[in-house]
Amino acid sequence: MARRAAIVGAGHTRFGVLDEGPRALLRSAVDGAFSSVDRGVERSSVDEVFLATLGFGGWQIGNSSAVLTEEAGLEGPPTTRIENACASGGFALRAAVRAVEHGDAGLALVAGLEKMTDVSNARRRYWLGVSGDTEWERLAGLTFAGVYGLIASEYLHRYPQGREALAEVAVKNHANGLKNPNAQFRKRVTREDVFRAPRVADPLGLYDCCPVSDGAAALLVVPADQAHRYTDTPVYVEGLGAGSDRLAVQERAQLTRFEASRRAGARALADAGRSHREVQFLEVHDCFTIAELLALEDLGFAEPGGAVELTLSGATAAGGRLPVNPDGGLKSKGHPIGATGVSQVYEVFLQLRGQAADRQVPHAETALTHNVGGAGATATVAVFSRG
Amino acid sequence: MARRAAIVGAGHTRFGVLDEGPRALLRSAVDGAFSSVDRGVERSSVDEVFLATLGFGGWQIGNSSAVLTEEAGLEGPPTTRIENACASGGFALRAAVRAVEHGDAGLALVAGLEKMTDVSNARRRYWLGVSGDTEWERLAGLTFAGVYGLIASEYLHRYPQGREALAEVAVKNHANGLKNPNAQFRKRVTREDVFRAPRVADPLGLYDCCPVSDGAAALLVVPADQAHRYTDTPVYVEGLGAGSDRLAVQERAQLTRFEASRRAGARALADAGRSHREVQFLEVHDCFTIAELLALEDLGFAEPGGAVELTLSGATAAGGRLPVNPDGGLKSKGHPIGATGVSQVYEVFLQLRGQAADRQVPHAETALTHNVGGAGATATVAVFSRG
Repeated sequence: MARRAAIVGAGHTRFGVLDEGPRALLRSAVDGAFSSVDRGVERSSVDEVFLATLGFGGWQIGNSSAVLTEEAGLEGPPTTRIENACASGGFALRAAVRAVEHGDAGLALVAGLEKMTDVSNARRRYWLGVSGDTEWERLAGLTFAGVYGLIASEYLHRYPQGREALAEVAVKNHANGLKNPNAQFRKRVTREDVFRAPRVADPLGLYDCCPVSDGAAALLVVPADQAHRYTDTPVYVEGLGAGSDRLAVQERAQLTRFEASRRAGARALADAGRSHREVQFLEVHDCFTIAELLALEDLGFAEPGGAVELTLSGATAAGGRLPVNPDGGLKSKGHPIGATGVSQVYEVFLQLRGQAADRQVPHAETALTHNVGGAGATATVAVFSRG
Repeated sequence: MARRAAIVGAGHTRFGVLDEGPRALLRSAVDGAFSSVDRGVERSSVDEVFLATLGFGGWQIGNSSAVLTEEAGLEGPPTTRIENACASGGFALRAAVRAVEHGDAGLALVAGLEKMTDVSNARRRYWLGVSGDTEWERLAGLTFAGVYGLIASEYLHRYPQGREALAEVAVKNHANGLKNPNAQFRKRVTREDVFRAPRVADPLGLYDCCPVSDGAAALLVVPADQAHRYTDTPVYVEGLGAGSDRLAVQERAQLTRFEASRRAGARALADAGRSHREVQFLEVHDCFTIAELLALEDLGFAEPGGAVELTLSGATAAGGRLPVNPDGGLKSKGHPIGATGVSQVYEVFLQLRGQAADRQVPHAETALTHNVGGAGATATVAVFSRG
């Protein structure tokens, strides 16, 4: 077990269709992170800043990492925007952990943000679509839902019982989101609801897809050996992993596995010195229900096809052996692109400190987050413990 | 003197209005970097990748750091896009140096890219404009040339002889660009040409402004103690600095200094353990001629107003005491946004290895690069030596 850094503060806005603009969302998440630090912290101590955002067209603001330092009330620290599509947040966390682990920074601020609902559907399709492959997929008319529909088709061809498992992912994550005050959807759905919903990209229906969301999240990261200056209950980052793959799914050997996730997961667990059995709950990138099944397999928590049984057994539900996405996941909490990877760590921060109220995972000591960019072209994994 | 990392390979495309698309530009710069490594290197050894790009509208490709790994022929390494407007390249170098300095990576690839000439003027104005302040500047009609025009007006109000110095920056950098086969403009200009040119944003005329450019550059970065596995003539990165400031110039105490540059410069020299006198030539961010004067002062090579005399004395010209922008600078070499900060290091790589042909700075042993995002909202500085 390694301790590469510690999270000592975390903030989160509501996710959903929000009135607030991007600057207000950033400010709110950052203020939340600072005020969550048990023994307080001076803003002037921040000496490294990272912003994760896709930077949607509707925002119309560039050099956005400097916007973050303005809204955070900071005076001149180094600041960097990191953009790896939907995995931006995970990569920004990785950059911040490395900065403090090696002494390059004493206090790093990481924020993730997206304002998605103030642009037209056409413009949003463009902004989302370019994060997948353009030449072979987008310009041929394939949307993200279409790509994941193809993947799900292939998965169900191999594992026909997967259809029930896909529905169960939606049911479970909506049930979890009911208990998350920041979630975009707080609504129970049944397997029948899922099956009866309009098709989006066969076999995926409306409840198999995450929504379009506004929102922001922020973290304060310090060197592990400094954590107790800020709080008695830090959350340690033990391991990091990242990987990449071809953008176009047709250029990969197999549709139903993401090599980027496999690389990231193996590296993160090795980096942490942890076995799968030691990890007690997961936050995985369920942009579509099929993505949660793939994640369980790519990260090694199930054999190929084994995510079906794992899911249908109830193991991944609240109270199960390996809860997955206790905050509702992208599916019900929402998916403001740049914020998602940061939001996953916010949930880990609450859970490992025992502050997750009625969605608390009992006796949670070790957790893993998994964040994917595009349809698996980039991915990060991080492993956390409560020390 | 510290040795934080070493550059062992560098590649560069021509800068200008080019036929090649973004993927071809990336491939060309990366191939150049690999083939420049004296003792060769396996592409499979690359274990960390950074892409600097503003990501222009005409490109229509997102998750672009995964595009870079594709074009570089790499299989799945971690890859990160870094975007800090015109300072993206400098921040990407900084991330790569830190990754190898601390052993997180053994061989990092950094590439910078912009394809700017395949979009309409209107779209380009938007893409460039959003990197400045939006609320107080862009939406009020102020372009980047307008902001730098205001800064230059204030500078000339304080230091009226500055008008000749601005012209001399253009004359000098065009003379330098004549000797750079990758430069967009290879054309001698005189002070009379500069004064007679059409006004763009008074007092700045056509020859005070850098052009719109396509181009890419790439670097291979390794731990300092591994450098001699690759070449007998590595270029060491001794120090790094970065800083930020408010986006809107009206929110700053003074128009004629960039606090972000001052912070970055002071940190980089301290990090390197170098004094100003030890630095033998500079690559500074001369997006407009006034920016070169500001850089000399902000980096401490001249007192406020002192850049006028330094420039008019010929000290910053080829053969002078402190050559500035021997490659022609943004002014004549061109300014493909994401590529610029990487291109500056390419020049340092050639110069410190004695490979700069007829623009060689004699006996060059130590150099500094300076890269600015927006009108001074973000900045990086790096210090290099030939070991």
